[in-house]
Amino acid sequence: MPRESNKSGAVRSAAVMPVEAGRRRVVIEAVTPQIEGGRFAAKRVAGEAVVVEADIFTDGHDAIAAELLWRRAADRDWQRAPMVLFDNDRWRGKFTVTQTGRWLYTVRGWVDVFASWRNDLEKRRASNQGGPDLALAFLTGAALIERAEKKVSKADAGILAAMRERLAGSADDDEKFATAQDAALAEIMAGVRDADLITTYAPELAVTVERERARYGAWYEMFPRSTRADGTPGTFDDCIARAPYVAGMGFDVLYLPPVHPIGSTNRKGRNNAETAAPGDVGSPWAIGSADGGHKAIDPALGTLAGFRRLVAAARAHDLEIALDIAFQCSPDHPYVREHPQWFRTRPDGSIQFAENPPKKYQDIYPFDFECDDWRALWEELKSVFLFWIGEGVQIFRVDNPHTKPFRFWEWVIAEIRRDHPDTIFLAEAFTRPKVMHRLARLGFSQSYTYFTWRNTKYELTEYFTELAQDRSREYFRPNVWPNTPDILHEYLQFGGRPAFVARLVLAATLSANYGIYGPAFELCENHAREPGSEEYLNSEKYEIRRWDVARSDSLRDVIARINAIRRDNLALHSDWSLRFHAVDNDAIIAYSKCMPDRSNIVVVVVNLDPHHVQSGWLDLPLDAFDLAPDQPYQMHDLLSGARYIWQGSRNFVQLDPQVLPAHVFGLRRRVPNERDFDAFI
Amino acid sequence: MPRESNKSGAVRSAAVMPVEAGRRRVVIEAVTPQIEGGRFAAKRVAGEAVVVEADIFTDGHDAIAAELLWRRAADRDWQRAPMVLFDNDRWRGKFTVTQTGRWLYTVRGWVDVFASWRNDLEKRRASNQGGPDLALAFLTGAALIERAEKKVSKADAGILAAMRERLAGSADDDEKFATAQDAALAEIMAGVRDADLITTYAPELAVTVERERARYGAWYEMFPRSTRADGTPGTFDDCIARAPYVAGMGFDVLYLPPVHPIGSTNRKGRNNAETAAPGDVGSPWAIGSADGGHKAIDPALGTLAGFRRLVAAARAHDLEIALDIAFQCSPDHPYVREHPQWFRTRPDGSIQFAENPPKKYQDIYPFDFECDDWRALWEELKSVFLFWIGEGVQIFRVDNPHTKPFRFWEWVIAEIRRDHPDTIFLAEAFTRPKVMHRLARLGFSQSYTYFTWRNTKYELTEYFTELAQDRSREYFRPNVWPNTPDILHEYLQFGGRPAFVARLVLAATLSANYGIYGPAFELCENHAREPGSEEYLNSEKYEIRRWDVARSDSLRDVIARINAIRRDNLALHSDWSLRFHAVDNDAIIAYSKCMPDRSNIVVVVVNLDPHHVQSGWLDLPLDAFDLAPDQPYQMHDLLSGARYIWQGSRNFVQLDPQVLPAHVFGLRRRVPNERDFDAFI
Repeated sequence: MPRESNKSGAVRSAAVMPVEAGRRRVVIEAVTPQIEGGRFAAKRVAGEAVVVEADIFTDGHDAIAAELLWRRAADRDWQRAPMVLFDNDRWRGKFTVTQTGRWLYTVRGWVDVFASWRNDLEKRRASNQGGPDLALAFLTGAALIERAEKKVSKADAGILAAMRERLAGSADDDEKFATAQDAALAEIMAGVRDADLITTYAPELAVTVERERARYGAWYEMFPRSTRADGTPGTFDDCIARAPYVAGMGFDVLYLPPVHPIGSTNRKGRNNAETAAPGDVGSPWAIGSADGGHKAIDPALGTLAGFRRLVAAARAHDLEIALDIAFQCSPDHPYVREHPQWFRTRPDGSIQFAENPPKKYQDIYPFDFECDDWRALWEELKSVFLFWIGEGVQIFRVDNPHTKPFRFWEWVIAEIRRDHPDTIFLAEAFTRPKVMHRLARLGFSQSYTYFTWRNTKYELTEYFTELAQDRSREYFRPNVWPNTPDILHEYLQFGGRPAFVARLVLAATLSANYGIYGPAFELCENHAREPGSEEYLNSEKYEIRRWDVARSDSLRDVIARINAIRRDNLALHSDWSLRFHAVDNDAIIAYSKCMPDRSNIVVVVVNLDPHHVQSGWLDLPLDAFDLAPDQPYQMHDLLSGARYIWQGSRNFVQLDPQVLPAHVFGLRRRVPNERDFDAFI
Repeated sequence: MPRESNKSGAVRSAAVMPVEAGRRRVVIEAVTPQIEGGRFAAKRVAGEAVVVEADIFTDGHDAIAAELLWRRAADRDWQRAPMVLFDNDRWRGKFTVTQTGRWLYTVRGWVDVFASWRNDLEKRRASNQGGPDLALAFLTGAALIERAEKKVSKADAGILAAMRERLAGSADDDEKFATAQDAALAEIMAGVRDADLITTYAPELAVTVERERARYGAWYEMFPRSTRADGTPGTFDDCIARAPYVAGMGFDVLYLPPVHPIGSTNRKGRNNAETAAPGDVGSPWAIGSADGGHKAIDPALGTLAGFRRLVAAARAHDLEIALDIAFQCSPDHPYVREHPQWFRTRPDGSIQFAENPPKKYQDIYPFDFECDDWRALWEELKSVFLFWIGEGVQIFRVDNPHTKPFRFWEWVIAEIRRDHPDTIFLAEAFTRPKVMHRLARLGFSQSYTYFTWRNTKYELTEYFTELAQDRSREYFRPNVWPNTPDILHEYLQFGGRPAFVARLVLAATLSANYGIYGPAFELCENHAREPGSEEYLNSEKYEIRRWDVARSDSLRDVIARINAIRRDNLALHSDWSLRFHAVDNDAIIAYSKCMPDRSNIVVVVVNLDPHHVQSGWLDLPLDAFDLAPDQPYQMHDLLSGARYIWQGSRNFVQLDPQVLPAHVFGLRRRVPNERDFDAFI
């Protein structure tokens, strides 16, 4: 009897055929999307389609059939849809994830005996076969139908019996051929399957389905304490007063650095000075004081009640509050006293501060995720998320997740998402590619990227082609930032206002998720702490800044315009359609995004040289836009309002950075002519 | 407590973290070789290395260590070797498979706490740190050592204690730094590991290790009944007489089409005529008669005793016999009478013959692998292999495996290989790529290829680059044939003798495994049955042919030469080093193979145009051969015996197909000069 072989007691891999599966002749391989053999889930947002492909084939020449199965993980029953062969043994099917949460899918296939018989019969007809072979072929079909009659409803059995009698009876061959091809017969027979013969792909694969904000959103980062015009410490009430300003620029998410009590022990001074001067406010990332820790509010900002008012006020402006989750403690954090076992201890009994010799961060104690009491620590950290979810927060920007164990994040995100599937997690991991990808795979909704350091045409083209086209797009959702409180790139330091506008347009159109750190960004703040540094001079991380957001040279109007363009153009709501286009000038980059049905096409052209007028010939792939070579089309610059009529694939572009370093074109395929006196569409 | 989440009774994927693994901080991903997530084994031959790579990393900045584990599946204990980081979080290790059979391997990694401390200390030294932080750092190391002392041998514990005392004592800092870097200390500490913290990659991955003939061999196919000079039916004794001729050409494997009794019912006539004339001998693939089936010998060829003599005689000439396994029956096969349930029955009670309308093969009944009695059928078919293994056969060429279920092959090959790991299986599947690859993955040692239909420079370059470089090379071993009894390509039909020589050289040097169907090949038989057909006229499949192997225009000497070259040049014993080189003439193809240490380099240049002299400039990658641009080197044409001194990367080649359409150069890097009066090396 066929059985698992097991010689010398050695373990055999799971590859050995289970004996009962001997009759499952269909092979299913290379199912996509699939991440690390099903170890991790692909990502979608509610309403999106999951296109599933697989290599499906069998031995010999029999016809096969395949279907896609899917369900919410919480549901019992599979939904099903047929898969269709499209090329070289590759089949495709698709389903739509209609709500947030975890979904599962798999593929199954089987030899379709009846369809094989029908194909065979068509060949007999085509070759004008007659005689006993043909007569027997009709009877073979009749026998297949007879066997099926026992497995279907009474009504269907009646239909089948009639068909069978026609095939087995004395009708002429033409009538029998017609019967064999009968659509009702085909449909009933397609529903009759022998479970023993069906191959089901294992393992089941998963999709994490989030809400739309996971895929598309504009973020604005702001220090709450720097929201007062006079430079005195701002509070949540000042943030509430600032909300219309942020909302007026069209942002979706207002992200706040930590709002918790700040430690005083070993507090850093202005510009990261080793010791604080009297009155220095300290870094919000040095979390915890006698006033509380990760679940408390910095008294300088207000109270929990004030925070709630801010959340509500923001919501009234269609702004969501995102909080910063930084799992580390100041020496004054209550955890240090209550749970010293959660930290590493030095031989003198003191707690080990953060240290990367020769650098010392004595204002911060990292957690010891491996400590003997790790289970309690992990549960407590989970409760921090749950606390703020309870306060109405659904978006978390996680600080340096790559310095905490991957397994912790995988666990805590799954735990939170189980009961709160609308929670969004942004990973702030500026580190090596494989580490960033692992964090994305294990569950983070979005990831910071290398965008800040990708400034040339070559760098941007390579990087965003990877982000939009590589199979990692199934799990890695970029959220790109031209600046952060930690990073003021030299392109911004030396490029002036045109550099800020160019980087804004790039961020907002290359990526459906982007953010700026303001008001530093819109006010074109470009002073670094020292030459060669990417740190801001007088960084808000260590002091309160006074920002004149009403300044006439602010970029607020350009930002409002670009965010309005984003909102109006569905093509900019996702990244997968991104495609770069040739321009014969390396200072000019051009790309497009479009809806699958071409109902919205956006073409962006940016002059990357902030100092000089640049021009060149742009090559557009007309076929990708369903345009004929002789068909004029309108390029409507949504930034400037200008409209151009273009024709053919090659057209001239010129951009003066002192005016506007970018075009953001809506491409309109319909251009009126003399036979059409209505307006532009 | 962290635990598997399980909401609404829904099944969670296996992806959820087991709670006890929370402290395993190292991530191991993308281990190669790996075939379909470990579902199938990679392939090697005994003595080869398996180079294993993996992405290995952890959170934060701690030092990590990793090792490769491997063992024979039949053994209990793992062997171990360290893995080394080489690039971008990718690590590499290697082991050698010393004997045939199934081997397993995996990877494990862990945070190396002591190495992390040592790295940290080096940074403190580099930054001239002193004071209490440095003093505490020394004590931290001493504490790590103290903990290790309990886990090592008494002798090692003594060494550790001495080191610890030096670190914790009053020695000066320099001495303590030196102690921290002590090699003996490092070695002992590296051996101390906490199993709770070690990540082991799952699943374990497998390698099927075969003998060398699986990777390298020259095959000769011959119809035993066509071995008599006078054209009367040949026997095993005639095959024995022919063995020195085949061995003299340097072949390793003598492959015989089926040697079993041939059915007479519905026997095909000459040139596949629908009915046989009296005296027609029938196709050897119509297996089975009253004289027996798959375990019997065609009485026209002799007896089982005669077959045994042939096996022994061949072995005496260093020739192995390969048998053809064709799982199908003539209507006269004993199985048909004894096990009618193993075949499909038509509605009139007759057994379904092989049929692809309008084509009918009434002389052949296919097995019904899905029949209710499939287990008994599968066991019987397995016993066919075992029977011939019992008769000394270790190589099987399997006829049309793609028309039998994949699961059957996976099962039967694993079963046979378990007890007979030296058995080699060649899949004769001329079909779609994914089907061929699946057969290779599930266990076939070697596979027929598309070589016969790849005749232009572009086609050959693309195809053999894929075969040699794609990751499928881990399981797909090509065995290439310029002709078979079924395929006489038009290139041979119309190219004359130069075409035969060119295709011989290509087959024998592009692929470590190749074969010819003779004597048709060496006698340049090129008559097709009809224009546009690839079938031989008067095919040996249906009749006995009389071959004059002593003909003066036979290619036997060229074949003997090329097989001797193959034997002498280790570079031609495997395929992975294959690399194509540019020639500025599309009629000339050039490529090389070399040993990893450059101890043997073969450069092949072939004129693909059988009708005209062709010439061009060949570009060789000197760096790949460790040659300097100003260094002369010798190109020794191993086919013609001519020697050329070349220098630099570009050299002129010219080939007259009427003389010899190919160079097979041994590239010798050592060229004597006036300072060196010894002979060429």
